[in-house]
Amino acid sequence: MLKEECGIFGIYAPSGDMAKEVYYGLTALQHRGQESCGIAVNYDRDISHYKDVGLVNEVFNDRILSELKGNMAIGHVRYSTAGSSRRENAQPLVLRYVKGELAIAHNGNLLNDDVLRKEYERSGAIYQTTADTEIIAYTIAKERVESPSIEEAVSRSMKKLVGAYSLILMSPKKLIAAKDPWGFRPLCMGKLDDKIIFASESCAFDAIGATFVRELEPGEIVVVEDGNIKSFLDNVKEKQNICIFEYIYFSRPDSVINGQLVNDSRRMAGSILAKEHPVDADIVIGVPDSGIAAAYGYAKQSGIPLEEGFIKNRYITRTFIKPTQDERKIAVSLKLSPIKKYVEGKKIVMIDDSIVRGTTSQKIINFLRDAGAKEVHVRISSPPFLWPCYFGTDVPRRSDLVSVNHSLEETTKLIGADSLGFLSIESLSKIIPDAKMQGFCSGCFSGKYPVDVEAYKVVR
Amino acid sequence: MLKEECGIFGIYAPSGDMAKEVYYGLTALQHRGQESCGIAVNYDRDISHYKDVGLVNEVFNDRILSELKGNMAIGHVRYSTAGSSRRENAQPLVLRYVKGELAIAHNGNLLNDDVLRKEYERSGAIYQTTADTEIIAYTIAKERVESPSIEEAVSRSMKKLVGAYSLILMSPKKLIAAKDPWGFRPLCMGKLDDKIIFASESCAFDAIGATFVRELEPGEIVVVEDGNIKSFLDNVKEKQNICIFEYIYFSRPDSVINGQLVNDSRRMAGSILAKEHPVDADIVIGVPDSGIAAAYGYAKQSGIPLEEGFIKNRYITRTFIKPTQDERKIAVSLKLSPIKKYVEGKKIVMIDDSIVRGTTSQKIINFLRDAGAKEVHVRISSPPFLWPCYFGTDVPRRSDLVSVNHSLEETTKLIGADSLGFLSIESLSKIIPDAKMQGFCSGCFSGKYPVDVEAYKVVR
Amino acid sequence: MLKEECGIFGIYAPSGDMAKEVYYGLTALQHRGQESCGIAVNYDRDISHYKDVGLVNEVFNDRILSELKGNMAIGHVRYSTAGSSRRENAQPLVLRYVKGELAIAHNGNLLNDDVLRKEYERSGAIYQTTADTEIIAYTIAKERVESPSIEEAVSRSMKKLVGAYSLILMSPKKLIAAKDPWGFRPLCMGKLDDKIIFASESCAFDAIGATFVRELEPGEIVVVEDGNIKSFLDNVKEKQNICIFEYIYFSRPDSVINGQLVNDSRRMAGSILAKEHPVDADIVIGVPDSGIAAAYGYAKQSGIPLEEGFIKNRYITRTFIKPTQDERKIAVSLKLSPIKKYVEGKKIVMIDDSIVRGTTSQKIINFLRDAGAKEVHVRISSPPFLWPCYFGTDVPRRSDLVSVNHSLEETTKLIGADSLGFLSIESLSKIIPDAKMQGFCSGCFSGKYPVDVEAYKVVR
Amino acid sequence: MLKEECGIFGIYAPSGDMAKEVYYGLTALQHRGQESCGIAVNYDRDISHYKDVGLVNEVFNDRILSELKGNMAIGHVRYSTAGSSRRENAQPLVLRYVKGELAIAHNGNLLNDDVLRKEYERSGAIYQTTADTEIIAYTIAKERVESPSIEEAVSRSMKKLVGAYSLILMSPKKLIAAKDPWGFRPLCMGKLDDKIIFASESCAFDAIGATFVRELEPGEIVVVEDGNIKSFLDNVKEKQNICIFEYIYFSRPDSVINGQLVNDSRRMAGSILAKEHPVDADIVIGVPDSGIAAAYGYAKQSGIPLEEGFIKNRYITRTFIKPTQDERKIAVSLKLSPIKKYVEGKKIVMIDDSIVRGTTSQKIINFLRDAGAKEVHVRISSPPFLWPCYFGTDVPRRSDLVSVNHSLEETTKLIGADSLGFLSIESLSKIIPDAKMQGFCSGCFSGKYPVDVEAYKVVR
Repeated sequence: MLKEECGIFGIYAPSGDMAKEVYYGLTALQHRGQESCGIAVNYDRDISHYKDVGLVNEVFNDRILSELKGNMAIGHVRYSTAGSSRRENAQPLVLRYVKGELAIAHNGNLLNDDVLRKEYERSGAIYQTTADTEIIAYTIAKERVESPSIEEAVSRSMKKLVGAYSLILMSPKKLIAAKDPWGFRPLCMGKLDDKIIFASESCAFDAIGATFVRELEPGEIVVVEDGNIKSFLDNVKEKQNICIFEYIYFSRPDSVINGQLVNDSRRMAGSILAKEHPVDADIVIGVPDSGIAAAYGYAKQSGIPLEEGFIKNRYITRTFIKPTQDERKIAVSLKLSPIKKYVEGKKIVMIDDSIVRGTTSQKIINFLRDAGAKEVHVRISSPPFLWPCYFGTDVPRRSDLVSVNHSLEETTKLIGADSLGFLSIESLSKIIPDAKMQGFCSGCFSGKYPVDVEAYKVVR
Repeated sequence: MLKEECGIFGIYAPSGDMAKEVYYGLTALQHRGQESCGIAVNYDRDISHYKDVGLVNEVFNDRILSELKGNMAIGHVRYSTAGSSRRENAQPLVLRYVKGELAIAHNGNLLNDDVLRKEYERSGAIYQTTADTEIIAYTIAKERVESPSIEEAVSRSMKKLVGAYSLILMSPKKLIAAKDPWGFRPLCMGKLDDKIIFASESCAFDAIGATFVRELEPGEIVVVEDGNIKSFLDNVKEKQNICIFEYIYFSRPDSVINGQLVNDSRRMAGSILAKEHPVDADIVIGVPDSGIAAAYGYAKQSGIPLEEGFIKNRYITRTFIKPTQDERKIAVSLKLSPIKKYVEGKKIVMIDDSIVRGTTSQKIINFLRDAGAKEVHVRISSPPFLWPCYFGTDVPRRSDLVSVNHSLEETTKLIGADSLGFLSIESLSKIIPDAKMQGFCSGCFSGKYPVDVEAYKVVR
Repeated sequence: MLKEECGIFGIYAPSGDMAKEVYYGLTALQHRGQESCGIAVNYDRDISHYKDVGLVNEVFNDRILSELKGNMAIGHVRYSTAGSSRRENAQPLVLRYVKGELAIAHNGNLLNDDVLRKEYERSGAIYQTTADTEIIAYTIAKERVESPSIEEAVSRSMKKLVGAYSLILMSPKKLIAAKDPWGFRPLCMGKLDDKIIFASESCAFDAIGATFVRELEPGEIVVVEDGNIKSFLDNVKEKQNICIFEYIYFSRPDSVINGQLVNDSRRMAGSILAKEHPVDADIVIGVPDSGIAAAYGYAKQSGIPLEEGFIKNRYITRTFIKPTQDERKIAVSLKLSPIKKYVEGKKIVMIDDSIVRGTTSQKIINFLRDAGAKEVHVRISSPPFLWPCYFGTDVPRRSDLVSVNHSLEETTKLIGADSLGFLSIESLSKIIPDAKMQGFCSGCFSGKYPVDVEAYKVVR
Repeated sequence: MLKEECGIFGIYAPSGDMAKEVYYGLTALQHRGQESCGIAVNYDRDISHYKDVGLVNEVFNDRILSELKGNMAIGHVRYSTAGSSRRENAQPLVLRYVKGELAIAHNGNLLNDDVLRKEYERSGAIYQTTADTEIIAYTIAKERVESPSIEEAVSRSMKKLVGAYSLILMSPKKLIAAKDPWGFRPLCMGKLDDKIIFASESCAFDAIGATFVRELEPGEIVVVEDGNIKSFLDNVKEKQNICIFEYIYFSRPDSVINGQLVNDSRRMAGSILAKEHPVDADIVIGVPDSGIAAAYGYAKQSGIPLEEGFIKNRYITRTFIKPTQDERKIAVSLKLSPIKKYVEGKKIVMIDDSIVRGTTSQKIINFLRDAGAKEVHVRISSPPFLWPCYFGTDVPRRSDLVSVNHSLEETTKLIGADSLGFLSIESLSKIIPDAKMQGFCSGCFSGKYPVDVEAYKVVR
């Protein structure tokens, strides 16, 4: 089962058609998923939708948007998975069940999907996608049979669903947002005049001129019906566990999550790195785009000047024809081009957000050496990846993680750096000083998860 | 719920890739459905598929076909339904259930779909399409839980499913064909070397050089596993009831159904018409394409010469931009062009297969008059449509049927004919003299159905 | 230089937008060219256009048509050529020259294109297409410099242009139709209310409800300006030479050319064949679509009953994936399916319009034998192809023509027929008894051309 | 006649297929034109090509590239023009002329295009595009008639062609690069093993691992034949006049033009701005992407800290559906999102590269105020636009230029800034200290052009 990172968006308006607002909102959330996208709208209790493989501005055009009529609407952008099931897995998932129609947009990953899948199969369930979202849909559909309301069904489902799931649902009459009791993934509420909006990140509110109201509590369900907002807190636990990688890499720098500006977290990580791993160098450069803010922090703290080391080619997108193995020599620097004059003869601190397999770092360091860099000291604004993620981040299996199989010295040598320093696990909490929360998940770095993953034995 | 006519195809080969055979087979069955199509293949127990809106040669290309690897394969062509659900409703339906993967291609329509839909909803089912096929899939999935084999599950399901359903299924190891106990829709078996093939009509065998083996019995299940064929006859009833309209209109003229050449049925209908409704005329012309064979029969029986009255434009397809109301005057004869020289000053017998609303007949008769026809005597190679079809034919609601609301005289006047004659209900049995069967369904003409439709009260 | 058959259409209206009329007209002429198509419109002296590879209903949609505004419009459909130049060669050719804009649609082929091409190159001409139309455009542009009017420039050009060219031109103020002085290709004028229309064939008038006015004279130029029609006859010669193959194969059966219904010519050819090559047989069958009318004539004359031998699959279009060599065995009869019951055990006269390489005839005869035919007597409704065509028909080079290299006996054997008979050259004139004209071109059969082709020595 | 900015690329290799190298090179030059693109290849003296509307990675795919075979190849990216002529205007222009085939890729704009166009029209020329490139093609074709070689024809043509034209041509045997005698647009030569490359900017060499050799001289023609390079300097004048806006905005920051790193020019402009227009402020922010480098320079010179003020949404491309007038309120900040926390309560220096109509500046300043900025001081890294450009930059007509119609004070007020400062014309020469050249064109700022534009009176 492939894991994904996604972005979700939902809007309620007293009247008017909201598909275009979702289009704008999804465009602002596009960094959370570039494979497929979709919009579902609710026109007088009748739900219609459109979804396909591609970026938001590739999938939708004026004609399609104008046919999506309705004053309630939800949308989804999805991260890349492989193979032929791609179109089927696009969201929102729109279905008919015991109480009519329902649309679901989901960000996250279940831990007990296999357990539930098998349970439902034994009562005759059929699955048409490979996404966890279908498991969530079945759970809600089953709970709905005996529940007095859709929100009660969602609440009961949340007691069965273990893992990461920020959800936006749309029933014939209600727009519903729900966050799993651990609070793995962000989900917040905004407002624009008399419209009520939910989105994965606050940057989507800025995009449409709306204002941020608040983050949802872990376990909270918010229901919008006829413009009235009700919150249900039955499943709220004492502790939340947002994915720390949302701050390090996933979220947009201008988003505010739990009160903390993402860009500030990255600067702080850079600043701490400068203290934990100082080095004598001429310039600090960040690997675009995500390493730039940490480089800013490193430079400021260390006093070493920040320099633009790389130009990134913005036109290399999904459909770009990758160079073959043979062409590596002539096409390596097409995406990331070092400015020779700035790096030539310099001792460089190069900041990146993470090292996964090590191959990308190796190539980038190579560019810098080819461009005349004297020394390349690599500083990573997160700890080494050592463990799997069960909650929606596509961390490869352990055998592929360079830090699992190599010591720091070996890794340094392997990527061709003069020195290498990672942010310490201890410092992770310092990069989110303003965040209003009691905890975060750093399982991929520490192997310690907010949920007992062993209890859900699954081979990945 | 919109009803549809469809075509299905399945093939088992000991080895090799069969997607292209399905492609050819579906092309031969394209007349049974032009909206969407799909192919599912089985590669070493792993099922993959591709489907989309469009004709077979629009949806598939060399690249897509070459990626569909597998020695078992099934395919589907689907008739036009409306709206946004079109892509979702494309078949085969490929799903995962308690025993792994399953692909289903279905032609027909259930009578008790709503009853079953509600029953399953009450146990938490979710529906992602609006097609009956999903109901069939759930039924099989539920029965499979307690059944020792997929064929047993299909057999048990057939006891629950009421209505028309010719099915081709593909499990990880088996290719299965099944026909409902009433035998509403055709489904036959063919052979090509060591390949075993199932198809809606025998013309699909001719297309790939295969030979016809036999029609499936109503209620029969045929299972192909590792090249061995087993037949299950538990659900076989004493009487079969093939849709008589398959002979009159649906099937391809060169198909043989239950031993009867379709083209011969049409000629026979024309011949009987000549006896039932003789007229003094100069020429007989058939409305292309389906009226041609009946016109041949009428001409032969009556001795009145057969003439080519119309040229049909073959380039007016699905994507053609229809003339607006205002343009009717200039664009009426674009699709069907009368040859003026042949009709001018003539007393004409015009043969068509049916009259639904009467508007098309009216237009065609008008062309003939504009082209100088002296008299136009209309003869229809089927009885008047008076009742709904519950078994997969898209007959409009009764209020739209011209013969429900008008006497023969009124209809004659309305369409502008000099005289009008329908085939009598009594003669229907005579158009299929060679067919090996004990009955047929003529419900849309007679209101008498092989199943007690009142017991499944549904508003249509 | 590849040769093509094409269809052209032009319309003038006092007001309103005419693009949709052209769309309908081109749809009616689609049989004359299926590779590419285009429409140019004139809005208050400003010419815009759209063209691309594909059928008329593939290239144009509602949006594109609605953007093509203008009360004068011309269009073109083009026959298949090979390779990358296909899009460039689409017509109408729209250009700017000394007097502003000009759009040209051309059907035919020049004999002296290479001579003129070289002449213009020597004065600095550049060619962006491989079509003769560009040579015609240059000729008109050059003549226009010194001519007092566009029609004068066209007239002067016609004295230089040798070969087949039916033209429709659109200048900022005028719609102009012109036919070469030999009259190789059809071009006629029609009328609908106050609209004036030109088209390759009269069937395009029927398609839009217009009436046929008359065929253009060979060498005639007709100019429409502000609704007034003027005819220029300077280049009219005493004799015309329409391509006889327009009657045998190219034109639509319901078109009337020079007063002769095309379908009647084909029936007459069949009737003559029956006299020239009688045979004792059980049934006559025509190879669809073009052999049907000749079969009708043969049957009527001979008294042998006409039978439907083949069902043609209408869904096998341009994008269909052809079977590979290996698949021949399983896919041969996909396009043309014999009705076994009708041919089994029969002595058959099979009528087709022509034999080029002999391979297609061989396959079709093989189908019939496989279906059980006892004897297959082939009758061809035209004489053997023995010579090249220089005037727009894509006859292959002589070495590929079966009749050039084989005696009648050899050809009979090669295609597997029991006997073979061609229409005699002498009878060609009899198939067009009503045609108002003094001659026709039968060069591909007789080697006698209306123009001294040797004088324009070109290797083909 | 619409004016454009473009990018060109050409490559010669002793053997192998070079289309993919062009693909990579054009991707690196994509910033110079996003509307259409094309590649022409030369396979054993036979030129084929492919071009269409769209970005390089939209127009080309694996199949298309693999069909473009040839060891010589040229390519082109083109800036947006309006209307239906877009596809026709795509380049390279591939043509046949007196000496066979020729492909032309052009960056720039002629001053005397109308004069030449009329001259050629009077000798019968026809134009199929609206691009100057066709005029250049005619000129070369005409000169080629009497010239002993293609390079001689190009050289003679350059004496007739007035304006900006960096050209890459491909004849059956030669790859030719030429720069107009004024040197308006960049064009340089590179090397990769035994391959010889020409490109608009050096960043294209970096992209494929090639090394920069040298800039072409103004008026120089470089001919590559069988791997040998020859330079022709007949048209070289004493003075060159590169467009200064190439440094300010057009070229990629990592390109080196005439020895000057583009990014350094921008930093220098910022640094000078800080001296010419100092201000008391808390932070300096650059408007992405082009204002960032100047902001760096301003910050460094002034000592005011550089801050990231904006996040740019990279997913808003050509096909994005723009908000309507009514939606401005909710969608203004979709493309450029200010980081509220960083600008709130701050006195800001905002650096941008230019002001054209003033409307964009007004919106951006508005964002900053909405986000809480206390003061917004705008500094522009170029002088005010006051005059038209005749040499390939799409500067709007004078009446649309805010600085033509408003005093500095008025403009300041209009855009809503607290203060506004432009780079002085005098400082332009200081931003290119390393550039090896004797002059540059600053006509759009100063109204002084290297060519007597009055002599070519054209209304724009």
